[in-house]
Parts: sequence; C-alpha cells; structure tokens
Amino acid sequence: MSFVQKLVCVCCGREYRDDELNYYCPICGYQTGILDVKYDYDAVEKVVNPKFDSKDRSMWRYLPLLPVRDATHIQHLQVGWTPLYSAPRLAVELGVAQCYIKDEGRNPTASFKDRASAVGVMKALEKKAERITCASTGNAASSLAGFAAAAGLPATIFVPKRAPQAKLAQLLVYGAQVFVVEGTYDEAWELCMEASEEFGWYNRNCAINPYLIEGKKTVSLELIEQILDEQGKLPDWVVVSVGDGCTVGGVWKGLWEMKRLGFISEVPKILGVQADGCKPFLTAWQDNKPLIPVAANTIADSIAVGHPRNFYKGMQAIHESQGSFVAVTDEEIGWAMRTLARATAVFGEPAGVAGIAGVRAAVQSGIINSAETVAVIITGNGLKDIQSAIQFTGAPKRIAPSITAVKEVLR
Amino acid sequence: MSFVQKLVCVCCGREYRDDELNYYCPICGYQTGILDVKYDYDAVEKVVNPKFDSKDRSMWRYLPLLPVRDATHIQHLQVGWTPLYSAPRLAVELGVAQCYIKDEGRNPTASFKDRASAVGVMKALEKKAERITCASTGNAASSLAGFAAAAGLPATIFVPKRAPQAKLAQLLVYGAQVFVVEGTYDEAWELCMEASEEFGWYNRNCAINPYLIEGKKTVSLELIEQILDEQGKLPDWVVVSVGDGCTVGGVWKGLWEMKRLGFISEVPKILGVQADGCKPFLTAWQDNKPLIPVAANTIADSIAVGHPRNFYKGMQAIHESQGSFVAVTDEEIGWAMRTLARATAVFGEPAGVAGIAGVRAAVQSGIINSAETVAVIITGNGLKDIQSAIQFTGAPKRIAPSITAVKEVLR
Repeated sequence: MSFVQKLVCVCCGREYRDDELNYYCPICGYQTGILDVKYDYDAVEKVVNPKFDSKDRSMWRYLPLLPVRDATHIQHLQVGWTPLYSAPRLAVELGVAQCYIKDEGRNPTASFKDRASAVGVMKALEKKAERITCASTGNAASSLAGFAAAAGLPATIFVPKRAPQAKLAQLLVYGAQVFVVEGTYDEAWELCMEASEEFGWYNRNCAINPYLIEGKKTVSLELIEQILDEQGKLPDWVVVSVGDGCTVGGVWKGLWEMKRLGFISEVPKILGVQADGCKPFLTAWQDNKPLIPVAANTIADSIAVGHPRNFYKGMQAIHESQGSFVAVTDEEIGWAMRTLARATAVFGEPAGVAGIAGVRAAVQSGIINSAETVAVIITGNGLKDIQSAIQFTGAPKRIAPSITAVKEVLR
Repeated sequence: MSFVQKLVCVCCGREYRDDELNYYCPICGYQTGILDVKYDYDAVEKVVNPKFDSKDRSMWRYLPLLPVRDATHIQHLQVGWTPLYSAPRLAVELGVAQCYIKDEGRNPTASFKDRASAVGVMKALEKKAERITCASTGNAASSLAGFAAAAGLPATIFVPKRAPQAKLAQLLVYGAQVFVVEGTYDEAWELCMEASEEFGWYNRNCAINPYLIEGKKTVSLELIEQILDEQGKLPDWVVVSVGDGCTVGGVWKGLWEMKRLGFISEVPKILGVQADGCKPFLTAWQDNKPLIPVAANTIADSIAVGHPRNFYKGMQAIHESQGSFVAVTDEEIGWAMRTLARATAVFGEPAGVAGIAGVRAAVQSGIINSAETVAVIITGNGLKDIQSAIQFTGAPKRIAPSITAVKEVLR
C-alpha cells in the first residue's frame, strides 16, 4: 500500500530500501547522513491527480504521499487541515498585495509539530518500539507526549531548561517521563541521541529520523490544495520560521511534490525567517559558507537552535525555491504578535509569528515586492508561551468594582 | 433569510418581535426576564432534514437555526466542527460502556465560548454597535476579544482578579480594553451591565443577551450530527460543566432541536457538573428551592460562578432532559485532567475536564449505569490555565546533560 521506493542519503547519494535503516546513513553518520524518502510519483499521480479524493479532513488525506505501511497505527487525533485565512488588513500592514495565514496552532497539541509526531508515533508502533524519545525546545516534545499518550506508548522527553512552562505542563499532563536538561537545546539533543542508542528507544528527532519530515510536508500540500479549492491566487512566497531546518525542509518538499504531481506549475519562493539572536542559516547563506554553530539568544524558544541538525535540507529549501533568509529581532517579533492577533485573531507564539515579522523585513529590504502574495505559516499557538506575550503587551488596568473607577480610566 | 419567529420571555411568557429588544424582557428585568429565541421549525425542517446540506465545516453550517439576518457580518474565523473522539480506554477508566469526547479547546481562541462570541460580534455589527463589552471569568472574555479583533470592532472587557494569566494575555494581545476588577466575577458582571448601559456599548453577556445561547447550542447539533455520520451509538448522557447556566442551557436547546427536527427520537439526559466549592445549581435542584447565591471556591475558574445569571435555562436543561446535577472536588478535577490527557491526548482546563470527573462521580453514585454511553464536552483548552495543570502533575526532574545523570534517575 505504501508508495515509498527508497531512502537516499542527501550526503553521499547511497540508496537504501525503505525500512532497511531506522535513521541516518551509516556511512556518513548522523551529522550529515540525513536520508530522504523517495516515492514512486508516477504511481502516486495516478491516484491523486486531478484531485485528492478524500473526505478525510486531516493530514491523513495524503496517505499516498506518506510512509505508512499499516494504517491501523494511525491515532485518532485530528491533525492537520488547519484553517487557512485570507488576511486583507494584515496585507495592508505588511505592504504586500495579499496575505494568507495558515494557523498551525489549531493542531491537537497546538503546534505544527503534531504533523511530525503523528508520523513518528505511527512508525514507532510499526517497529514495535516499547518507548519513544525526543529532544525538543518544547513543541516537538509536547506534541510527541500527546501522540504517545493517545497510542498508549511510553515516552521519554529531553527539554532544555529554557522551555516555557506551558510546554512543560503539557508533557507532564500527558504523562511523559520528562528530563529538564541543565543546558541548551543542543546539549539536550546530544543527550537524547545517546540515551536512545543506549536504551533502544525509538528516536523521533526530526533531523535524523527520515520519516518525520514527511509529516511536516503535509502543511504545504494542504496550503496549496486549500488555495486551489477556493480558487485563490497562489502565493509568490511561503514564509516560515527556521530552527533545525526540518520544518522549512518539509515545507519545501510539500511544495515540490505539488509541482511534481501537476497541481502547480512552479514552486513558490520560500522565505526562511530566523531570529536575530540565532541565525546560523542566514549567516551561512549570506557568506556561502558551511554551518558555524552559534549560541542562541532569542525570545523565540522554538527557533533558538544554535546548531541546526538539518542544515542540508534547510539550505536546500531556500536554494531550490530561489527564496531567501531574513532575521528579525525580538522586538519585531513582539510587533508581529500584536499585529497578527489584532488583524486576524490568530495568536501565535514568538517563533510562530516570526514569519510575519520576516515578511515586513523582506518588504523593507526589497526581497519581497508590494505586488506579491505571501502565505505565512504560524507554527505554534500563543498560549504556549504566555510570559513572552505579556512582555509584549504590558499589564492590564486594575480597578475597584465601581462605575466611578471605570469613568476615571476612560476620562 | 432568518427563520426566527419571535423572542419569548422565559419568566412571564410575553412575546416580542425579533430585534424589537436588544436583551431581556423589560417587564421582568434582567434578573429573571431572559428571552428565548423561537424559530419556525416547520420551515427549518424542510431545509435541513434529512440532512444538513452544507460543505461548511464550522458552526455556520447551521445557519437556518441561527439568528442571522445578514451573513456578511460573519467573521472569517473557523469556529465549531471541533473533533469528536471515541475514547475506549477512557470509557474503561470511567466505568461506562462508551465515551465520546468533544474537544472544544480546538476552537479559534481555545474554548467553547467562541461559539457564542461569533454570534455576539455578528449581532453587534448588525446593530451597528461602536463597541462591544462583556464580563467573564476568562474564556468568554478572550473569545470576545478575538472575534472583536477579527471584525475590527473595539471591545471592553471586565474580568475578576482571579482570571488566569493565559486568558489575560489573550485579551491584551487581541488589543481589547481590559479592566481587571478587584472583586469576584459577580461584581465584574454587575459593573459590566452598568457600563454597558451608561456608555451604550453592545452587551455580549450571555445570560441577558438572548442570541448568544444560539451559538452555544451548535455544539449539540454537531455532536449529534457527527455521531450519526459515523453511525455511532447515540449517547444516553451528554455531560458538561455548569457555571452561569448558559452553556448547559445551550446544550439542551441544541439537543431539543435535533429531536424537534427528527434527527433523534429522544433527548439524551444531561449531566450538569458543578465544582464542590461552588454548586448553587446542585443545591437548588436537590432541595427543590430557588437560587441562593454562594461564594465561589474552586480551581475551576470558568465555573466559579456563585450567582448564576441564567438559573432558569440551567435548571430547565436538567429538568426537561430528566438529567442530574453532580459536584466534584478540585482533586477529582485534577484526576480528570490527567486521566483524560493520558487516555486521549486531549488536555483540558479545570472547568473543561470537570465533566470527566462528573461522569465518575455519577457512576459511583448510581446516576449513570455501566451499560450507558456518555458524551463529554471539554469546554476549554488546558493551555488556558497552566498553573492549575502544574499543581496537578508536580514538577519535572532536572538533570545535568550527561548519560550518567539519566541512568541515575532510571535506576
């Protein structure tokens, strides 16, 4: 039933049978030997074109484009098919012709990462794993904890100490075993890798597990399908924040597949948005140099990734789509959070709204022109990080319970 | 285009033309003169039966059953058509034959209240209001702030000082004018009433605005339609937490309409769940006496309503459905939060999961029997109140970034 043909190492080009390996290319190792899942697109095309013929309003409507061998491992949670809004007031604020918002905060655990965790847990069950693990700045963690709970699969999660409280609360409520690592995300990630090997836990880390990005790409399949459904204008740019490189890699793969399958005639440009305090992709791209890991310093915890683990696929997304990277400050992220919420009622977390700030920066620097249409992926719900939101809005007025007090303030 | 026939006072029975009044019956006053919206159901039936013929996967698919005069006032936010899950593991835990979960935390601002705010803002625009206001324990407030932002309509919100931080953050991010009242919800409510009259702001308070409950009832229309779609077993009980009485009143009205329109042959019993520290409905119902307002003392802020403003419709729901009230302690709410999350991955706020605790209490006391099927409405997302969640789960382990530290803990 699966249309997967093979796994190909993005570093050395070696080919492997699907499920021959669990994670990365053994020759190149996990730092560079990332695998890409290849499908028999000629066969897929016959099934899905001219339209995806599914009543399923979730990411599983794209089953022919997913590495699923046994659909009984799919959990009940309704993931994907998140709302796509046209946001004319926001387009005016940003200085573009048209603006779409894809609200990924509406997923089961309130972030985009659910698309990947849904696949990760499905694969873990397929491989009869007894426990699943990941390291995460927060969203992948809470997402994995949720999907593991749904499946009744034990989970062990490594998060850096700076993970926001809301994401920690999710982990605990879902009953995962949680280790808060006294260190950075990068240290938590290495520790998770080590523990996974030591104890034989199934590893959901997106950079080294080739199947996860397949879940992530569904956001692009949906984005294009939803716009075509409404006979809307296809975007010139798809905009997303960048941490590890996996998300932007997934966004690119989905867009590329929609072209390969004949739904669109060209892949939109991708704008990858980093935080000013953590922009290893932007630096490497501007200087045309290899990755130099940095220390992360930004309020946007989900993209506070100083050592991106999927550098190859992250760079590929921008290069092959002829897109661009930009960086935005924490203040610009605060502006984006307020502006997005007030124009559309979509409340995003800092990394979630970084794309909005990125559009403004790209318009100001001439990367995006005012006649162009953008589609921005809001990767996580603002309720995931309340402290940052309050920092950007100030405290409310406290008054005594009397109309006099109200009049006092209004005067 | 509207099928609304008239407004009827639930207290004196006087009839009014739709839109003749803004809020309550002027003869009975706002404490008792609550209006009910009556439709021409014979005409509605011709349009919707045998099936709701709409591709719209939102609450607006029920347009013939909503008080909408001009659909252009409907905002873009995708509200309603929230996931319905069958939860077999949870059913075992609760000791019932089958259990459905309706996850209302998946609405645009993460609570059930969005169904009401969507109607409130629509009506405010219809009435050309320049500002909309409400008092709320938190969710109605953040929901109104979101929908008002979407419509570009200014909003003034009154919340009691105990409103959780996440709900406050939503208000501020959405750009509402916020008054944190140094007092209880009941005081904030009275103050809002006074300010609304004084300044001519459109009042979204659900108990006195007859149109709001029409939005709330859509949860029941959906619940039944989704179960029928999947050819599932209709529930013997629909379970929901009770604060003001408006939500349970809406739940009842929707179920009653599904019977009136021929979709079901009898209305399920309704289990209204209150907090042990705030149970004026339960007390009045057990003693068959009028309402006696109480001081609220519960972690479940959304149902911490000592003076329910829609006592009539709240009681009617339980009486007419031949249901029951129960009360649950904060500890039981904590148990329910963990148990629901670990069995289904649905993370609810305290009032949101009170229904789960209520089912257990009702099974233990013989109100619900083990052969029955329940459908529980989870009214708000757990991300709305992180402090309570953490209180119920404990803190995670902190470790140094070394495999030795991991082994230490696992030993």
